[in-house]
Amino acid sequence: MTSEIYEQIDGFFNPSSIAVIGASATPGKIGHAVLKNLLEFHECGGRVYPINPAREEILGLKAYKTILDVPEKVDMAVIVVRSEAVPEIVDQCAKKGVKNIVIISGGFKELGGKFRDIEAETAERARRYGIRIIGPNCIGVYDPRTKVDTFFQPKERMLRPSPGSVAFLVQSGTYGIILLEWASMDELGVSKFVSYGNKMDVDEADLLMYLKDEPNTKVVGIYMEGLGNGRKFFEAAMEFTKRKPLVVLRGGWSEAAVKAALSHTGFLGGKGRIYEAAFKQAGIIVARTLEELYDMVKALARQGYAKGPRVAMVSNGAGPMVQAVDAVSVEGLELAQLTDETKEKLRENLSPFTIVDNPVDLTGSATPREYEIAINALLEDPNVDMVFVFFVHQNAPMNETIIDVMNEMNQKAKKLGKVLLAGAAGGPYTLNINKEMERGGIPTYQIPERLVAAAKALFLWGQKVKR
Amino acid sequence: MTSEIYEQIDGFFNPSSIAVIGASATPGKIGHAVLKNLLEFHECGGRVYPINPAREEILGLKAYKTILDVPEKVDMAVIVVRSEAVPEIVDQCAKKGVKNIVIISGGFKELGGKFRDIEAETAERARRYGIRIIGPNCIGVYDPRTKVDTFFQPKERMLRPSPGSVAFLVQSGTYGIILLEWASMDELGVSKFVSYGNKMDVDEADLLMYLKDEPNTKVVGIYMEGLGNGRKFFEAAMEFTKRKPLVVLRGGWSEAAVKAALSHTGFLGGKGRIYEAAFKQAGIIVARTLEELYDMVKALARQGYAKGPRVAMVSNGAGPMVQAVDAVSVEGLELAQLTDETKEKLRENLSPFTIVDNPVDLTGSATPREYEIAINALLEDPNVDMVFVFFVHQNAPMNETIIDVMNEMNQKAKKLGKVLLAGAAGGPYTLNINKEMERGGIPTYQIPERLVAAAKALFLWGQKVKR
Repeated sequence: MTSEIYEQIDGFFNPSSIAVIGASATPGKIGHAVLKNLLEFHECGGRVYPINPAREEILGLKAYKTILDVPEKVDMAVIVVRSEAVPEIVDQCAKKGVKNIVIISGGFKELGGKFRDIEAETAERARRYGIRIIGPNCIGVYDPRTKVDTFFQPKERMLRPSPGSVAFLVQSGTYGIILLEWASMDELGVSKFVSYGNKMDVDEADLLMYLKDEPNTKVVGIYMEGLGNGRKFFEAAMEFTKRKPLVVLRGGWSEAAVKAALSHTGFLGGKGRIYEAAFKQAGIIVARTLEELYDMVKALARQGYAKGPRVAMVSNGAGPMVQAVDAVSVEGLELAQLTDETKEKLRENLSPFTIVDNPVDLTGSATPREYEIAINALLEDPNVDMVFVFFVHQNAPMNETIIDVMNEMNQKAKKLGKVLLAGAAGGPYTLNINKEMERGGIPTYQIPERLVAAAKALFLWGQKVKR
Repeated sequence: MTSEIYEQIDGFFNPSSIAVIGASATPGKIGHAVLKNLLEFHECGGRVYPINPAREEILGLKAYKTILDVPEKVDMAVIVVRSEAVPEIVDQCAKKGVKNIVIISGGFKELGGKFRDIEAETAERARRYGIRIIGPNCIGVYDPRTKVDTFFQPKERMLRPSPGSVAFLVQSGTYGIILLEWASMDELGVSKFVSYGNKMDVDEADLLMYLKDEPNTKVVGIYMEGLGNGRKFFEAAMEFTKRKPLVVLRGGWSEAAVKAALSHTGFLGGKGRIYEAAFKQAGIIVARTLEELYDMVKALARQGYAKGPRVAMVSNGAGPMVQAVDAVSVEGLELAQLTDETKEKLRENLSPFTIVDNPVDLTGSATPREYEIAINALLEDPNVDMVFVFFVHQNAPMNETIIDVMNEMNQKAKKLGKVLLAGAAGGPYTLNINKEMERGGIPTYQIPERLVAAAKALFLWGQKVKR
């Protein structure tokens, strides 16, 4: 049995038919791009209706003057007309039996004055009709399984990720685009995506109440600028984090940024970091930058959680480990004390120039085989919860067999209930190996500080899982 | 007239001939990779002598049993044999008249005990002979003009940047590799590169005294783990920053990291951030991460300096500007108060949905032409020192003409003595446009916080230029 909110929100991801109100025949127009991106939904059996008073047909689809002229049932509408026309269109949608609306257009609350009133009026009508609205002033919804895609970013300019277990909810469409393209490049699969802009109706709390029961979603990342109804949000978050991890980045906390956020999505970001304690109390993992939000979500999706804070490191180039050790102490993790047995294993089986301590420095002459010996020993050490492996893949003694080694080590880590994270940066050669590691489910980071922050999320979630 | 130190250090970048002591015929070996990377130097008219007691020829070059067997003069030696053999090899080099030695091998001070003694003994002999040594435990020297390249990273695995105006000095070879590959991908040219590892002899101070007079070098970035002779360094830095900007990242400041740095390059990182004041007093711009070091150096190389702290921003997707506004307040920059004239210009010439304030939000319907109008107005505003332009290139109404717009705006900024920085992130489409912007000399950043930190460096250097 599913809840009412579940069915309402699920309507955005599983409609049978979608009307695009304001569909345009002119390439470069937002109403053209949205329609074009929905062609795949159409090809997969969904029905798409362009609504445009001046056209018979757009992009091979029969167009209608108004939504009321569509002969079949319409489940969802995507609105891309100017704000002043929206309240009346909502009336038409209601008459047509539409249950879900995504308003892409801006020109509402964020402009203030009469536009604020238009937003209030639209929301009021939607509530009256029992219609749920995402937006306005957003890029809307993406579902890689059902191919619902309300974006105005053409596919040749913006990668879409494959189906997977991560849901992103963003107040800023820009940040949503970036997160989705990063996920695509890492082959990190997505379950649901919502850009909700001004959140006139559907807010983070509604989406969390849906996603906590949504079976494909295992972890959620949110970028928000303003809380709106804080109590509702924290209650939903507390409920959500009983089951699944939630990472939140909050923008617009400085005084100047409060003003910028206000004119962006019409929300007050809130002064200073006063909500930080409330976030933690609700079981939320707090990210400090967009990269950190992404890094943490990726780690949680791929590696689950860490049983404890004790970290062991190994590399063939120690520089990044020096920085990682700094970061470990900042982030509240610990450098593991390796057992004598582990040290003995390392000394016996590795080159005499290896620095056997934690971190383990294999030095520039290290081969994939030496990495294997070292990672094996570190994973088997009872004092170790997480192993961070840094690479200089560029070094002559290395080669691509390291990918197989790491995949095997990742299997071993999973069996032992331990975490394995990789770090490497550079040009195309290294980035390709990173991609192979990601493909094998090993989260890979270019910068040691980013790796450590992601590890912190695994530790924090592990603490919550324990309780 | 050049100084003695200038000539000594210049020898590393302009030798007529190089011997590779420990050259190997086996692919994958460090001594093989180093020799192979020097083939280009050989093809450009330099002479390269592989030294290997067991081979007649390696990679098409005649090999010699010892350096003393080479019939011609040898200016520089690159040593890749185990540490125990090094003191004697230095004797041979002295006998042969070698003036510069790069020791790639590890196995010195960083291992402690007798290895520490070997390092001291080697340094002592070099001093006695008047030979300058870079290393040990490093990847050595790279000069894109003369093709001196002592790396053991094959070219197909590691990009080399073109000739340019940035010098990087790094204690960690790994970080050096990353910086050079990032520079290559951004088409940011490099003048000189030195990875100095344990800095048995040549240290940062020596290199700075050289680079302050080296005509191709306009800005220097350093990654260091330990100061060594702090007084010497600060004196050199103070001298250097009278002429050129210097950005420094220091690793290993946490207590645990001190230990890691000690076993990495045998240096004490120093407790806490006690040196921070001294760094600032010496006119050094301090970076907090490797990315920041790179970002700042890139901004300084491409945009010079900022006359003041006053920032104006514009975007077609406000999310990153919200974060940038937060960062501006953190980094000690200021949001510019736009003049009424500027606001008037923006209101008259842009869509009525534009949010005319600072930041300027062009909203998702913005075209390259609207960007042009906005950037023009912001650059012309007397209250503005720097303009940050953020993009969602993925949006349907945008297109590649934005590259021409930005190149023109960059020319205008230069004429007006103002700074122009760009921000955009995403997948291949966006990254390609970013690359085009870089090619035009516009520093481009994926993350607003990184852009703002780079801008801070331009402001700090501008303050110094004023004095």
